[in-house]
Amino acid sequence: MLSLEQIQEIIQQKVKILNFSGQPVELYEPIHYTLNLGGKRLRPALCLLACDMFEGDMDDALGPATGIEIFHNFTLLHDDIMDQAPIRRGKTTVYKKWNQNIAILSGDTMMALAYGYIMEAPEKVRTDVFFVFNKTAIEVCEGQQYDMNFETQAHVTIPDYIEMIRLKTAVLLAGSLKIGALIGGASIDDAEKLYKFGENLGIAFQLKDDLLDAFGEEDKFGKMKGGDIISNKKTYLYLKAFELATGKSRDEIRYFFSPEMINQNEKIEGVLRIYEKLNIRQFTENEILAYYRNALNYLDSINIQKSRKIELISIADQLNSRKF
Amino acid sequence: MLSLEQIQEIIQQKVKILNFSGQPVELYEPIHYTLNLGGKRLRPALCLLACDMFEGDMDDALGPATGIEIFHNFTLLHDDIMDQAPIRRGKTTVYKKWNQNIAILSGDTMMALAYGYIMEAPEKVRTDVFFVFNKTAIEVCEGQQYDMNFETQAHVTIPDYIEMIRLKTAVLLAGSLKIGALIGGASIDDAEKLYKFGENLGIAFQLKDDLLDAFGEEDKFGKMKGGDIISNKKTYLYLKAFELATGKSRDEIRYFFSPEMINQNEKIEGVLRIYEKLNIRQFTENEILAYYRNALNYLDSINIQKSRKIELISIADQLNSRKF
Repeated sequence: MLSLEQIQEIIQQKVKILNFSGQPVELYEPIHYTLNLGGKRLRPALCLLACDMFEGDMDDALGPATGIEIFHNFTLLHDDIMDQAPIRRGKTTVYKKWNQNIAILSGDTMMALAYGYIMEAPEKVRTDVFFVFNKTAIEVCEGQQYDMNFETQAHVTIPDYIEMIRLKTAVLLAGSLKIGALIGGASIDDAEKLYKFGENLGIAFQLKDDLLDAFGEEDKFGKMKGGDIISNKKTYLYLKAFELATGKSRDEIRYFFSPEMINQNEKIEGVLRIYEKLNIRQFTENEILAYYRNALNYLDSINIQKSRKIELISIADQLNSRKF
Repeated sequence: MLSLEQIQEIIQQKVKILNFSGQPVELYEPIHYTLNLGGKRLRPALCLLACDMFEGDMDDALGPATGIEIFHNFTLLHDDIMDQAPIRRGKTTVYKKWNQNIAILSGDTMMALAYGYIMEAPEKVRTDVFFVFNKTAIEVCEGQQYDMNFETQAHVTIPDYIEMIRLKTAVLLAGSLKIGALIGGASIDDAEKLYKFGENLGIAFQLKDDLLDAFGEEDKFGKMKGGDIISNKKTYLYLKAFELATGKSRDEIRYFFSPEMINQNEKIEGVLRIYEKLNIRQFTENEILAYYRNALNYLDSINIQKSRKIELISIADQLNSRKF
């Protein structure tokens, strides 16, 4: 079996030789640019790993894996318009570098290109693979809409939030694994278990992101700590704190998240103080651990030798122990 | 065989019962709204007609026909953002009624929904149908990009323009017919001939639109005549006039299309005068006739009884004789 790193390298090479030099250049240059911004290629790598895990031929999964990566980058491209984000992976975003119309249209084109690659799946499983992908694509859109809704929605519950990150983040990781499994020859039952592994791991992954934004070490890219706090983002930590805070704590947390609170450092320090007091870090870690264990239970229940699961266990472990 | 009107009614009923009442409502309400703005349902009707023409079961084509209509409406939704168009079919456009982010995201979702319906094609032709649709979807994006490019591009040739309208308008009509033909059991060769019929008819259709904008009767919706002239749109008429104008005519046409020309009636009258002088109406009618005849030649060459082609011949005739 190949390691995650070896598989990521295969995907990098595949993406590098993709030829999006079509006409008109105004449409295809942004696609080439977006796909070459880098990134860990985690989703296509999971797809290939899953195929390999069931002793399938990874070449059969390379097209769909590429489609998944193109789709993922399409969602980032359109999300950047919606969030008016100027920077992605240290580079200017498409809508800033070109313009908004080009960003909308090259994104649309990427979505169609992604579907084309998905349909390179072997004939035997092509329709199944397509519908796993299609359901996932729709759910990712639903997740993004919930995320936008939550910005202005006064009352968001923790289950609402978990459902949002499940749709926005977890289902694409889960779908990538399931597609790889189907291509690798897994039974429907095993493929579905691997999906549930990915879904739970994806939720844990996003919760870990939330946690690290508040309590992580500075990462090597110098991504600012406390970004979620500054932008009043309704993360798990925020929602848990509002759930638990009573009396003075509640007034305090309202104060620090109020629009009047313009000193950023003071805001971050104030919020972190309340998080510490309410034990939010521990609550979040417990929640992550619960999803992580759920994920591993699903992986454990899959009907293949344990030795073939090592790479996915190692990925789950890395996630659980990462510090930034 | 059913008539176009009967088939359009089938599609209307099918679209009416589509259930896009999913969550979040912010995502699905605009989809429901867009699909219920009306429209002639021409593309799905062509798909069903083509299936019927080859004696296929139209029920087999109903899913893909629906997918085509959803896709077409998705392109209108995103085009309206790009063109900042406030009104579509007499109603407020989605990005105006809700907001731009919702318009982007509900459009993305419609594209995914469209693919799902396309894949309802019978298994035997599913992959072929998918790839006809997918190629078409990409080409429609390319056409829209060319259209946007031409707004600011100084030099546009008539072949450039024909290629743009081929991509933006004709290929989806052509693809709809080809998909219907494949589902109806046509040979690859006949399906391709029907595609070429649709492609040529689609180009004729758009050229006729250009012509009617300048020389048509007021339509019943009161769509303003001369809209293309006011917006300096580089239509076939505009490009042909610039190609033919020399000396004084060239100065005149430059003057009437210049930004200083702010009196709309004077502008329309001035341009129409030059069009008359340069015989642009006749040139355009000749061009339309050439594409129309090409279309009919392709239809003629298809290896089935002439009696089964009557409905498509009648549609082509209606196009050729319409006055608004």
